[in-house]
Amino acid sequence: MSADLPDVRQTRLDNYVDRYAARTKGMTASEIRALFSVASRPEVVSLAGGMPNIGGLPLDVVGSAVRDLVVDHGATAMQYGSGQGDPTLRDQICDVMRLEGIDAHPDDVVVTVGSQQAVDLVTRVFCDPGDVVICEAPSYVGALGVFRAYQCEVVHVAMDDDGVVPEALEQAIATVRAAGKRIKFFYTIPNFHNPAGVSLSSERRGRVLEICQRNDLLVLEDNPYGLLGFDGEPRRALRADDREGVIYLGSFSKTFAPGFRVGWAVAPHAVREKLVLAQESATLCPPVFSQLAISSYLTRHDWMGQVKQFREMYRERRDAMLAALTEKMPAATTWTKPDGGFYVWLTLPDGLDAKAMLPRAVTARVAYVPGTAFFSDGFGSQCMRLSYCHPTPERITEGVARLAAVINEELELRQTFGPLTPGAGHDYDAPGPELS
Amino acid sequence: MSADLPDVRQTRLDNYVDRYAARTKGMTASEIRALFSVASRPEVVSLAGGMPNIGGLPLDVVGSAVRDLVVDHGATAMQYGSGQGDPTLRDQICDVMRLEGIDAHPDDVVVTVGSQQAVDLVTRVFCDPGDVVICEAPSYVGALGVFRAYQCEVVHVAMDDDGVVPEALEQAIATVRAAGKRIKFFYTIPNFHNPAGVSLSSERRGRVLEICQRNDLLVLEDNPYGLLGFDGEPRRALRADDREGVIYLGSFSKTFAPGFRVGWAVAPHAVREKLVLAQESATLCPPVFSQLAISSYLTRHDWMGQVKQFREMYRERRDAMLAALTEKMPAATTWTKPDGGFYVWLTLPDGLDAKAMLPRAVTARVAYVPGTAFFSDGFGSQCMRLSYCHPTPERITEGVARLAAVINEELELRQTFGPLTPGAGHDYDAPGPELS
Repeated sequence: MSADLPDVRQTRLDNYVDRYAARTKGMTASEIRALFSVASRPEVVSLAGGMPNIGGLPLDVVGSAVRDLVVDHGATAMQYGSGQGDPTLRDQICDVMRLEGIDAHPDDVVVTVGSQQAVDLVTRVFCDPGDVVICEAPSYVGALGVFRAYQCEVVHVAMDDDGVVPEALEQAIATVRAAGKRIKFFYTIPNFHNPAGVSLSSERRGRVLEICQRNDLLVLEDNPYGLLGFDGEPRRALRADDREGVIYLGSFSKTFAPGFRVGWAVAPHAVREKLVLAQESATLCPPVFSQLAISSYLTRHDWMGQVKQFREMYRERRDAMLAALTEKMPAATTWTKPDGGFYVWLTLPDGLDAKAMLPRAVTARVAYVPGTAFFSDGFGSQCMRLSYCHPTPERITEGVARLAAVINEELELRQTFGPLTPGAGHDYDAPGPELS
Repeated sequence: MSADLPDVRQTRLDNYVDRYAARTKGMTASEIRALFSVASRPEVVSLAGGMPNIGGLPLDVVGSAVRDLVVDHGATAMQYGSGQGDPTLRDQICDVMRLEGIDAHPDDVVVTVGSQQAVDLVTRVFCDPGDVVICEAPSYVGALGVFRAYQCEVVHVAMDDDGVVPEALEQAIATVRAAGKRIKFFYTIPNFHNPAGVSLSSERRGRVLEICQRNDLLVLEDNPYGLLGFDGEPRRALRADDREGVIYLGSFSKTFAPGFRVGWAVAPHAVREKLVLAQESATLCPPVFSQLAISSYLTRHDWMGQVKQFREMYRERRDAMLAALTEKMPAATTWTKPDGGFYVWLTLPDGLDAKAMLPRAVTARVAYVPGTAFFSDGFGSQCMRLSYCHPTPERITEGVARLAAVINEELELRQTFGPLTPGAGHDYDAPGPELS
């Protein structure tokens, strides 16, 4: 089929460089991208990707569900649908959210093309260029990419092992407002944070909500991993205790499968109306077939049983990673201990730079995401995100061993020659699927 | 499942009204929306919707294809994928476009969530607030909604039965530039125009391209209906004769089915790179399952045979509509004669207002889209779009008879009382699926 394809790339010059929107100027693929194309080779252990391991899904159940969907309901499932999303699925989404204490009405749910699109639509509705979004430090690379695309200014707020630090949040709000800037919302991932691997403690949840309410600040609660905790019941969502001040984002990408691209937002009524209009402008409607496929899966299958299987699988991988880190990492290396989700956040010994080290790591057949990807301001160079979601426990153990060897070599070089190549400055790490 | 749902809509006041982005201020659902919810009742003949009639699709073939996709390739089909889109599908898209004379490389294709999202991403990449987009008069309501969402200024250019008038295009470019404004692109639907129902003549295609090249103006060629012509071979795309100056948009929504939400853009290399980054920011990746489902359908089925069946079905409906219009409409009513696609553009006798008349038409159990929806500037009140794609020929005949009766009543009233209620001013007609 590809025979005689023309070479349409006569030139690599960009004739349009002077015509792009201001928001487009900063859209360049980072050097990390090129490395990741190397990192996808099978001999490299990738601790970089955020792809869920969906190998355990019941393919026979899903296969029958989608076949029946076409044969029995094809005229609906393959047609345009509601811009807000399928009513039955929105009802089921409310059932899913009830597990986290959320009491929502299907009318306040908007289905989106993955929760990534929910971040995009909320930002589209709220943010003018120059508006401030408060984020955790670090924060999800895909959300930072959206805020950048809408020309927002991101202000990071410190986290510790219990999640965002309330005093730091309060101070950031005051400082930004004292500077005369408008803050549009506080973007937070309270559970099994991407990339930090920590969760907001129960005690802090009330304080964070109280601070945001007192300061009249909207909360954007992004919760793709909430049902993937390794211990006990799902934590209570922020939205469960504040229906007017919180926009909640959910996703089926980690509890079922990402390839259907179905996420959602729950918002106060007036905001929900705006989100639907924004969705119609962006796509007319989210994919109907995807929505009905997920709806059918939820109805036909013990989907919570499947989520429990996922949890056990990820718990085993988390255990493998933490054990290997404890065994292999040199002193003065620290890391978070996640009790759910996909990620460990590792801080290198003083003087090491995760971005500068990445090419050497890939050469040693292990990959990670440098911490700078998760900051809008060039910070994070001493840190990295390690994912345990996709490789097997054996590969994780091997990957951590390779990484520890690279770090040890760096430390030896540093002891011999002093600090080496600093990070190449901050560039934009576009939130491709491999960084999700 | 809906038992004991809380009433979350304690208030209809919008607490956030002062916090939205400037672009959001104009996002309000039009009054037409409310009427259309009435118009969807079965007793109303809707000549308003742009939904394709997909009743003829081979459900057994598609059902088997999606089942096999899950069972044999589930780990890929349900996973995250490339932000640019599946390589095999992009290769097949190049084959589809070859039918219109386009010689493109799969590397220059970006898959989108319907071609609606392609319009959104192109506008995102190119348009700052205040930038001008030149559109035909009338133009597609969904594209106008996007341009509005990005705060563009739309300048309309006259069309006639041969499509956009080249002299009017050239004059508009000169006038806008003389006013010191930046034009980002010329948005055009050359084939079976939505809503105008006309096509750009072969002779004019070269002239339009020559004008745009001479004026260094990018063309955004939107072509969802190109393969749905009733006579002869598909027309040659503008992109076929200019690979550097044209961004081409295509869709499977009308040749296969819209519920998968798969469209695409073909762009010069540098622009394509920006579109992929914008896509990753918007959704991480377009729906993988949808893409592979369509790829499998194209491989397994005589999809062009299916398109030919669609053409014959739509031709029959077009014939029914034109015959009924000729038979029933009062003098001084005029309309276009489409030779493909879904739409007829009808102009009422002087003094009648299609928007003001719509409630009376719906009461008489027929619906249409008032012409004002297809202009950014309040024009079009004397016109309406009539769709023949979805109702049966019998229903079309009945609907046109009802509409003619309403128009005749309006004419009688006008002769008795003089001009009646003018249009209620221009409001924004959000591009919901029913207007697509």
